[in-house]
Amino acid sequence: MDEVRVGFIGCGTHASMNLYPSLRFTPARLVAAADLHAERRERIARVYNVERVYDDYGKLLEAERDLDAVLVSGPPALHHAAAVAAMERGLHVFCEKPPSEDLAQAEEMLAVSERTGRICMVGFMKRFAQKYAMAKEISEREEFGRPSHLLLRYSFKTGGQRRGFLAGMGSHPFDLARHFMGDYVRVHALWSGAGGGLTLTLSAEFAAGGTGVIVMTSLAPAVVERLELTGEGAMIVVDDVATLEYYPRVETVWQPAVKEVRRPNMALQTPENSGLFLQGYAGEVGAFIEAVRTGTPPPCATIADGVEMMRIVELLSDGESGVFEVRPA
Amino acid sequence: MDEVRVGFIGCGTHASMNLYPSLRFTPARLVAAADLHAERRERIARVYNVERVYDDYGKLLEAERDLDAVLVSGPPALHHAAAVAAMERGLHVFCEKPPSEDLAQAEEMLAVSERTGRICMVGFMKRFAQKYAMAKEISEREEFGRPSHLLLRYSFKTGGQRRGFLAGMGSHPFDLARHFMGDYVRVHALWSGAGGGLTLTLSAEFAAGGTGVIVMTSLAPAVVERLELTGEGAMIVVDDVATLEYYPRVETVWQPAVKEVRRPNMALQTPENSGLFLQGYAGEVGAFIEAVRTGTPPPCATIADGVEMMRIVELLSDGESGVFEVRPA
Amino acid sequence: MDEVRVGFIGCGTHASMNLYPSLRFTPARLVAAADLHAERRERIARVYNVERVYDDYGKLLEAERDLDAVLVSGPPALHHAAAVAAMERGLHVFCEKPPSEDLAQAEEMLAVSERTGRICMVGFMKRFAQKYAMAKEISEREEFGRPSHLLLRYSFKTGGQRRGFLAGMGSHPFDLARHFMGDYVRVHALWSGAGGGLTLTLSAEFAAGGTGVIVMTSLAPAVVERLELTGEGAMIVVDDVATLEYYPRVETVWQPAVKEVRRPNMALQTPENSGLFLQGYAGEVGAFIEAVRTGTPPPCATIADGVEMMRIVELLSDGESGVFEVRPA
Amino acid sequence: MDEVRVGFIGCGTHASMNLYPSLRFTPARLVAAADLHAERRERIARVYNVERVYDDYGKLLEAERDLDAVLVSGPPALHHAAAVAAMERGLHVFCEKPPSEDLAQAEEMLAVSERTGRICMVGFMKRFAQKYAMAKEISEREEFGRPSHLLLRYSFKTGGQRRGFLAGMGSHPFDLARHFMGDYVRVHALWSGAGGGLTLTLSAEFAAGGTGVIVMTSLAPAVVERLELTGEGAMIVVDDVATLEYYPRVETVWQPAVKEVRRPNMALQTPENSGLFLQGYAGEVGAFIEAVRTGTPPPCATIADGVEMMRIVELLSDGESGVFEVRPA
Repeated sequence: MDEVRVGFIGCGTHASMNLYPSLRFTPARLVAAADLHAERRERIARVYNVERVYDDYGKLLEAERDLDAVLVSGPPALHHAAAVAAMERGLHVFCEKPPSEDLAQAEEMLAVSERTGRICMVGFMKRFAQKYAMAKEISEREEFGRPSHLLLRYSFKTGGQRRGFLAGMGSHPFDLARHFMGDYVRVHALWSGAGGGLTLTLSAEFAAGGTGVIVMTSLAPAVVERLELTGEGAMIVVDDVATLEYYPRVETVWQPAVKEVRRPNMALQTPENSGLFLQGYAGEVGAFIEAVRTGTPPPCATIADGVEMMRIVELLSDGESGVFEVRPA
Repeated sequence: MDEVRVGFIGCGTHASMNLYPSLRFTPARLVAAADLHAERRERIARVYNVERVYDDYGKLLEAERDLDAVLVSGPPALHHAAAVAAMERGLHVFCEKPPSEDLAQAEEMLAVSERTGRICMVGFMKRFAQKYAMAKEISEREEFGRPSHLLLRYSFKTGGQRRGFLAGMGSHPFDLARHFMGDYVRVHALWSGAGGGLTLTLSAEFAAGGTGVIVMTSLAPAVVERLELTGEGAMIVVDDVATLEYYPRVETVWQPAVKEVRRPNMALQTPENSGLFLQGYAGEVGAFIEAVRTGTPPPCATIADGVEMMRIVELLSDGESGVFEVRPA
Repeated sequence: MDEVRVGFIGCGTHASMNLYPSLRFTPARLVAAADLHAERRERIARVYNVERVYDDYGKLLEAERDLDAVLVSGPPALHHAAAVAAMERGLHVFCEKPPSEDLAQAEEMLAVSERTGRICMVGFMKRFAQKYAMAKEISEREEFGRPSHLLLRYSFKTGGQRRGFLAGMGSHPFDLARHFMGDYVRVHALWSGAGGGLTLTLSAEFAAGGTGVIVMTSLAPAVVERLELTGEGAMIVVDDVATLEYYPRVETVWQPAVKEVRRPNMALQTPENSGLFLQGYAGEVGAFIEAVRTGTPPPCATIADGVEMMRIVELLSDGESGVFEVRPA
Repeated sequence: MDEVRVGFIGCGTHASMNLYPSLRFTPARLVAAADLHAERRERIARVYNVERVYDDYGKLLEAERDLDAVLVSGPPALHHAAAVAAMERGLHVFCEKPPSEDLAQAEEMLAVSERTGRICMVGFMKRFAQKYAMAKEISEREEFGRPSHLLLRYSFKTGGQRRGFLAGMGSHPFDLARHFMGDYVRVHALWSGAGGGLTLTLSAEFAAGGTGVIVMTSLAPAVVERLELTGEGAMIVVDDVATLEYYPRVETVWQPAVKEVRRPNMALQTPENSGLFLQGYAGEVGAFIEAVRTGTPPPCATIADGVEMMRIVELLSDGESGVFEVRPA
C-alpha cells in the first residue's frame, strides 16, 4: 500500500504537539479524528486538515470503514478500550503509554493483538530518540562488550502522586532499561518521601547478567534525563536526550579521556534537529506507519514491551520498599 | 605555635605526588621522613628537603622528640600501627585512607584518639575538594532545602578484587555520601560480575530521611566521578570533580534550565586551579596542620568518620547482595 | 484589532518550515497565499489551512481587499517588488532577508515605508533568538558596562559564491553586529580564497566606540555560529544559538571562572525549546503581528536596519580587501 | 650525555611555579641558581635542592665551569643579556618570552646563536601544550586540508599598558598563529580604548595563503583563550587550553555535528593532567633538555621564532591602527 489511511483518537495537547506533526514525515493520510471536546477536535481538524471528525471514538470506528490503522492518545483507560475495539475491527493500533490502567488490561491487549494478528505498538518514543538509537547501536558493537550496568535518571517536577509517578514518569525508564539490558529478573525498590516529594531508587538485575539502577524524583528542577551505559570497559552517556558521548575502552586509567560527542546543531532548523526527531516521536510514528504499510512487525515498542513495563508498575504500586521478583531468571 | 614540626611516614608515589607538595601551602616544617626503601626516602629528602630520614617509622618516632604531628601514607596496616604508636607518644596524626585493615582497628584508633586527646584525621580529601566543598555549602542554604537524594558514581578501571574495590575505591563514595546525607541507617547492595568486572549498586537510607545510590564498577574507561545531589526542588551536579553546576528550584517544569557553572580556568597555572586544590589534597593537609597549630579539632574527616566508612566496607566484605542494617535509625 | 488578516507571498521550504508555523503562536488569520508552483501552494494550503491561494502575488494583492499585512519570502527581487506593491496598497509588510537585490532597492523600500506609514520589517530573526535577546538584555545592564568588543563567527558550508556569501550568509552577522554595537563607522575586509573556499575576516569600528570582528567562511563543517561580547570586564558567549554563558566581571585574573549558563532543556518538547523560538522565527513573526495589531512600530529589524545591512553588502561586493568607510562617525 | 647540568638564572614566581618543577621530568641536574633577592634564591635552593646559589648571574656564569646549559627567567633585558653572555661562554640557553626588550636585541641573540652554534630556545610553551600539539598534528593530516583560517582569542584582565599588552600578553598569540599558519605577510591592526581598556583586533595574511585574526583585550573576565582552526572543511577548536574538539569535514550542512573531544580527566592527579603538561611547560623544558642532551636542534620555539614574534610587537608598538607589511610575500 502506498498510503496508510489513519484515524486518530484523541486531540489533546500531547498528540497535537508531538504525534500529529510526526505523521507529516510518513505516507499516512489523516482521514478522521475523534475527541470529546469540540474545540480540540476542530482545532486539530483545521491545523492538520483532517477530513472528518467525531465526538466519540466508537462513532469513528463505526463510520470509517476504510481505515488501515488508528493512533490513540488519551487517558490509559481509553488506550486500552480503543485499542481492543480497533484491533477487533481489524485495525492496527498505536497507543500512547501507559497502554492501560493495569497489567491485566495490557495482557488482554497483547492477547487480542496475537489473536487478531494486528500490530499494537505502544508510545515508547525514547527507544526511537536519535541518541538512544545511536547508543543502542554502539552498545551492540563488539568493541563495547556486553552491557554490564545501566544508570538511568529520569525526573521532573511532578505533583508527586504515586500512580502518575510510576505509570506516567516511570514508564519511560522502566521500558528503556529493558530495551538496553534485556528482561528484568528482580528489582529492589527504595522509596522516600524526603523533602515532601516522592523519590524512587530502583536497583535491577537482568536475565542477561547485567545490573542497573533507575533514579526518579518528583523534586527535580526542570527535566533531568541521563543515561550512563557501561559495557566491558567502554561507556556511553546520553545527557538531556540530545547529547551522546562515547568513551571507548582504554588500556589504563592514566590515559586521558577520549570521547566522541554527537550533539544536535541548533543554529539551523532542520527536521533532524527538531524535538520530534531528537525525542523520538517522528521515529516511533514512522516505524508504526511503515510496519502497517509493509505488513511487517515493528522493530520494538509493541504491547509485549508494554506488558513488561506495566509489570514493574504493578509490582511497585503499593509504594513499599523491598525486593520484588519480576520473572524467573 | 607558628610552625608545625611534622614527620612523614611513607615516601611512596601517592604521598610524593599529592601530600608532600600540599605541605608547602602550610606552616609545616618537614623535619623527618621514613620509608623502608632507601631510594624512595632519599628522593623525597632531596626533592622536599627533609632534614632527616629513617628506614623505619619506629626509629623515626623514637629519635624525633620535637615533633608535633605525623602524616602516614602506606598500606592500611601501617596506617593503623603508626597512628596508634604516634598518638601514644603524644603526636597528632593524619593518615591516608583506608585508615586500617578492618573495622576493629579503626575503632581502636578512635579509642586511642579519644583517650589521648590527639587528633586523628583520615585522608578523605574529597570532602575538601573545591567543588565538593562548594556543593556542601550550597546544600546548606535554605533555598536548597534538605538533601533528599544523592547519586554518586565513582569508578575507574581496577583489577577487580573485592577488598581493594571496597576499601580502596569505595572509601571515597562511602564517606562522601555520609558527608552530604548524614549517617546511614540501612543499605541494599547489588553485586554483579557481568562483563568480567566487579560492579556494585548500593542503595542507601540515611537517618535524616534522605536516600541515595552509589554506583561503582571496575569496568570504567578512565575515572568516572559524578555527584548529583537533589534538595527540595534544587539540584547540584559535580562532574569529574572539577565542574559544579547548580540548578536552582523552578516553579514549573516548562521553564528553561537555568544554572550556575563553576569550572576551573585551565589556561593559567594557579595554585587554586591545580589538582592539589581541585582534588582536595591541599585542603585536607591544610586543615590538619591548622588544627594542630591552633589546637582545635579539624572540621571533619576524623577517625570517627573513618570508623563509619569501615563499617560499610565490613558489611559488604562478603560480596553478598542484600539488605544490611548499618546503625539503628 | 483582535485578529490580523494576513496574506503570505511565497510557499517555499524556508517559509513552510519556519514562518508559517510561527504564525500559529500569533493572533494572525492566514487568509491567502501565493506561489508560482502549484504543488507548493497546495501543500501549504492543506497543511496550514489557507483559505485561498494564488499563482501570482499581484493577483493576491488585487483580489484580497481585506488584508492587514503580508509576509514575503522568496528571492530578493520578489521581497523588494512585493513589499513596495503591498505598502502602496496600504498593507504592512514583513519580508525575508536580504530585503532586496541591492542597496538602492532597500533605500526605496525605506522611503516607501516612511511615506506610506506602513511597517516594513525584515527577517532578521537572530535579533529575536532567545539567547541573543537575553544577551542583549544582559549587555544593557550597568554591571556589564558598555559593549567594548564583539566577535561573531557565522559560517556554514556553502557553494562559495560571493553574492550569496555576503547577502545570504552575511546578512545575519552584519545586522547582528549592529544590533549589539550600534552603527558602523568603518570596516576592514580581509578576503581569502585559501583551501578553495571563500573566507572573510571583517574588522569593524562602531560609532559608539567599540570594535569587533566578523569571521565567515564557506569551508565550515556544519553550521558554526558563536558570539562573544565583551563589556567593561564582563563577557557573554552565545554558542550554537542555543547556549548562553555569562561571565560577570571579576576582581583579579586569579579568580576561578564563574558563569551562569542557560541552555535549552531538550528532554521535553516545549514551544520555548523548539527551533522556532530558539532561532527567533516565532519571535520575529510575533513581533510583526503584534506591531500590526497594536499599530505601534516593531522594536527593531525594520527596513532601516535592512538598509544598513545592505550598505555593508554593497561595500564588500567587489571582493576586494581593504578599509571601507561606512558612515561618517 | 646522560645528565644535563643546568644553571638557572632567576628565581621568581613564574620560574618557581612552572619551570623548576618541569625540570623534574627531565634528566637535568640543577647545579646552580642565581637571583638578586636572597629570599627567593634560598627558597628555590631549599625547595628544589639546588647545589649552589649566586646573587648575580655573572657570578654564576663565572664560577660554574661545568654547566651544559642555562635557563633564564626574569625581565626581558635580563633574557637578552644573560642569553648572550651564556652563549658566548658555550652554554645552551632557554629563556622566557619575550626574549628581549626589542627586535634588535632578539636579532642579536639569533646572530649569536648562529655564530656560536648554541641552542637558544624561547619560552613559547603553548606550542608544547598538550591540546595545541594535538591540534597541530591533526592540522597536518591530509583529511584536514591546509589551514585556511585561524581565530585566536587570548585575553586576561591586565593593567592595560601597551608594552606589556603586546610583548607580554601578545607574545603567545603572535607566535602561536605563526606556528599554525606559517610566516606573516601583512597584518591589519585595529586598536580600541573602549570601556577604559585596551583591545586589539589583528587580522593577518600568511605567506602560505591562509588568513586569521587575533583578538586580545585587557577587559576579559579571567583568562579567555580559544583557538579555532579551519582547514578545507574540517575544524579544530581548543578551548581554555584544555579541551580539544575536532569536527571532521562533512558532506552537507544538514548533517548533525560529529566531533571528537579530548578533555583532561580531572578526577585523578596525574602528571599528564597537570597544568605543567596541559599548559606546555613540561613540554618546552623537556624539549630543551633533550636537545642539549642529544646535541640536536629543538623542534621549534627557537630564537628565530622569537625574532618573528618581536617583529610583530615592534610593528604594533605605536598603537596605531592600520595595515602593516611584515615580510615580503
